[in-house]
Amino acid sequence: MSSLMVLATLDALRQQVKAWKQQSLKIGFVPTMGYLHDGHLSLIHLALEHSDRVIVSVYVNPTQFGPNEDLAQYPRDLEGDQAKIEQAGAHALFYPDDAIMYPDNAQTFVNVKNLSRPLCGEDRPVHFEGVATVVTKLFNAVRPDVAVFGKKDYQQLQIIRQMTQDLLFGIEIVGGAIVRESDGLAMSSRNAYLNPEQRQAAACLSRALRTVRQAFSSGTHSADELLQAAKYVIAEESLAQPQYIELRNSTTLETITEEAQASDRMFLAVRVGSTRLIDNAPLAGPCELD
Amino acid sequence: MSSLMVLATLDALRQQVKAWKQQSLKIGFVPTMGYLHDGHLSLIHLALEHSDRVIVSVYVNPTQFGPNEDLAQYPRDLEGDQAKIEQAGAHALFYPDDAIMYPDNAQTFVNVKNLSRPLCGEDRPVHFEGVATVVTKLFNAVRPDVAVFGKKDYQQLQIIRQMTQDLLFGIEIVGGAIVRESDGLAMSSRNAYLNPEQRQAAACLSRALRTVRQAFSSGTHSADELLQAAKYVIAEESLAQPQYIELRNSTTLETITEEAQASDRMFLAVRVGSTRLIDNAPLAGPCELD
Repeated sequence: MSSLMVLATLDALRQQVKAWKQQSLKIGFVPTMGYLHDGHLSLIHLALEHSDRVIVSVYVNPTQFGPNEDLAQYPRDLEGDQAKIEQAGAHALFYPDDAIMYPDNAQTFVNVKNLSRPLCGEDRPVHFEGVATVVTKLFNAVRPDVAVFGKKDYQQLQIIRQMTQDLLFGIEIVGGAIVRESDGLAMSSRNAYLNPEQRQAAACLSRALRTVRQAFSSGTHSADELLQAAKYVIAEESLAQPQYIELRNSTTLETITEEAQASDRMFLAVRVGSTRLIDNAPLAGPCELD
Repeated sequence: MSSLMVLATLDALRQQVKAWKQQSLKIGFVPTMGYLHDGHLSLIHLALEHSDRVIVSVYVNPTQFGPNEDLAQYPRDLEGDQAKIEQAGAHALFYPDDAIMYPDNAQTFVNVKNLSRPLCGEDRPVHFEGVATVVTKLFNAVRPDVAVFGKKDYQQLQIIRQMTQDLLFGIEIVGGAIVRESDGLAMSSRNAYLNPEQRQAAACLSRALRTVRQAFSSGTHSADELLQAAKYVIAEESLAQPQYIELRNSTTLETITEEAQASDRMFLAVRVGSTRLIDNAPLAGPCELD
């Protein structure tokens, strides 16, 4: 017997949320683009720890893909996702279509100006506008008390935190730890694009992060030297084309140019074949890489 | 004995709204920049017709003023406003400060792209971004069921309608009729800037709209001829400097170039001295100009 509610319309979603709120139940929310892996499931578990009822959305948001990106081939598996969401213990699945999320003539967009510029914002100029816009819509549709986002997309997490604060959403944002494959590769729906050789090469991202963390803990605190250490590991992998390798403040995302602090973060974007992979880690402190 | 609740913090506001919602009371909202006149009070009355509890906000939003505009001298009278809001029958006044509305490092902005471009968007390039952003914040803070905006700022009303639909706010937007002085001048807090001579000259806006409506009802449907009629009336007033005189579709705000329809609207922005005044009216149908 299925206990997962499947909600495909705004009315059905709002009615359910209203009923739960009238019982003073705390609503948790996990927005996803589907094709769920263990990383997503860990976010559902985290949401369950922070709330009484968890809603997971599955929606591949077109406005966060650039014109030459992988919107058309982005992997989809609603039936599989539904089973995993139920198994993970969530209470409702919201899967709206484009007509709900971008009604006719839709022209309203949300920008988090400073935090959207560096890192992935340079390679993907419309990406974070699309993310901030769709998350605003989903927040308004669901009205959760708490929402959970993964740290794999760390810049996105910080943008959502800033947006939630700036726009007075009154929603608690929780960041979930990165879930990794046994060789360290951060889980991502896009890992499905990799052939076996590329899949092996993709481990260079987490290897670079581990190397940098080891260097920092051994006393190397110069930003230049830490960046060189990461670049060296990526350069060793012939199938990997670095997009950016940067050291930035974990909160403001400002570049670190001199002496790095333990809380600063290394950010990587690397192309393996035509697949763009990202990863990040703090220089020290608890981290799922250890 | 005062029955008006005065709320200066987000917590106080949210607690009150939550209490009302738990009683299944419908929340109406009237956002203002204060210095209230009878136009604002008619919006409060309209909100009372559409809801059980009415919250009025008073906040002079800095981001909707351009660098050379009148933010510093914008008229303020919180004590007088409070008395008028209570007298009008509203239940709560929310008056946040800048630290609440634009917390440190605020950098998130909302744009309604197409509708923000023409008319006032041409003269005031950041204005509607500021409006859409602050209304998003206020909507998130108040979470009303219905919100009321005046038709004097007709482009603003359409932008808010579009934004509310696009961002899935689930809030009903109601437009309030323009309230006019005995000579037809649309009420505006900025009318306080006018000296007696300018005040008299300012009646040319409503005179132009009346002339255009009469021309339309007499069978003049050519966009060019209707625009000429309005321009002629404004040109007759030596103290008036037109900023724009345009005929546009009431919903899409697209320019009418050939034959006008009854539902199309004439839009005026006219400078009298250093004061910028706006007004608008449909070509036919019920209108407070009659």
